[in-house]
Amino acid sequence: MEEKIKISILLELYGKLLTDKQYEFMDYYFNQDLSLSEIADNNDITRQAVNTILIKCKKKLEQYEDKLKFMQKEEKIKKELENLEKTKLTSEQIKLINKVKKQIDF
Amino acid sequence: MEEKIKISILLELYGKLLTDKQYEFMDYYFNQDLSLSEIADNNDITRQAVNTILIKCKKKLEQYEDKLKFMQKEEKIKKELENLEKTKLTSEQIKLINKVKKQIDF
Repeated sequence: MEEKIKISILLELYGKLLTDKQYEFMDYYFNQDLSLSEIADNNDITRQAVNTILIKCKKKLEQYEDKLKFMQKEEKIKKELENLEKTKLTSEQIKLINKVKKQIDF
Repeated sequence: MEEKIKISILLELYGKLLTDKQYEFMDYYFNQDLSLSEIADNNDITRQAVNTILIKCKKKLEQYEDKLKFMQKEEKIKKELENLEKTKLTSEQIKLINKVKKQIDF
């Protein structure tokens, strides 16, 4: 999985464990695709300070995944649901599968 | 849901975020059904000290659930899978559903 996508998923899963400010910076960079310089300018800090925060937060999110493994778990669920979707299903069954997918939407 | 069962599930989900000692005490009480006095005696501390640790850890686990909501999410998935199981399925489909269930086994 591409690094930026991975971090974006981890941010979705564990972002609430960061501070509001940390989350905001991560969101700017990994979801809204702002550059380090843009984030720095908007927040009146140096590019280097932004970079330090992002590295720290990335590490934190990865540590949560190492321990809790929710991304890994949800990916396995997603894979099995995709296999299930390849089988012959009724419209009711498809609806129920979509409800499960909604819970692990990333 | 009964309190003790709820805490046991939260411990399964977020237990890795506690220290080894904290996890051990919670496991004794909520999974292995040891009494406060038994845990106290086995670890050479007071019953009150054990109680304080358990209350603190319980609060910590509940705070993680408040933020991350993985128990809530997995319960919703479980419910939809149960609805899916009530429909007419092939043995292959049942096998795939069981694989999903294995990921959220609590």
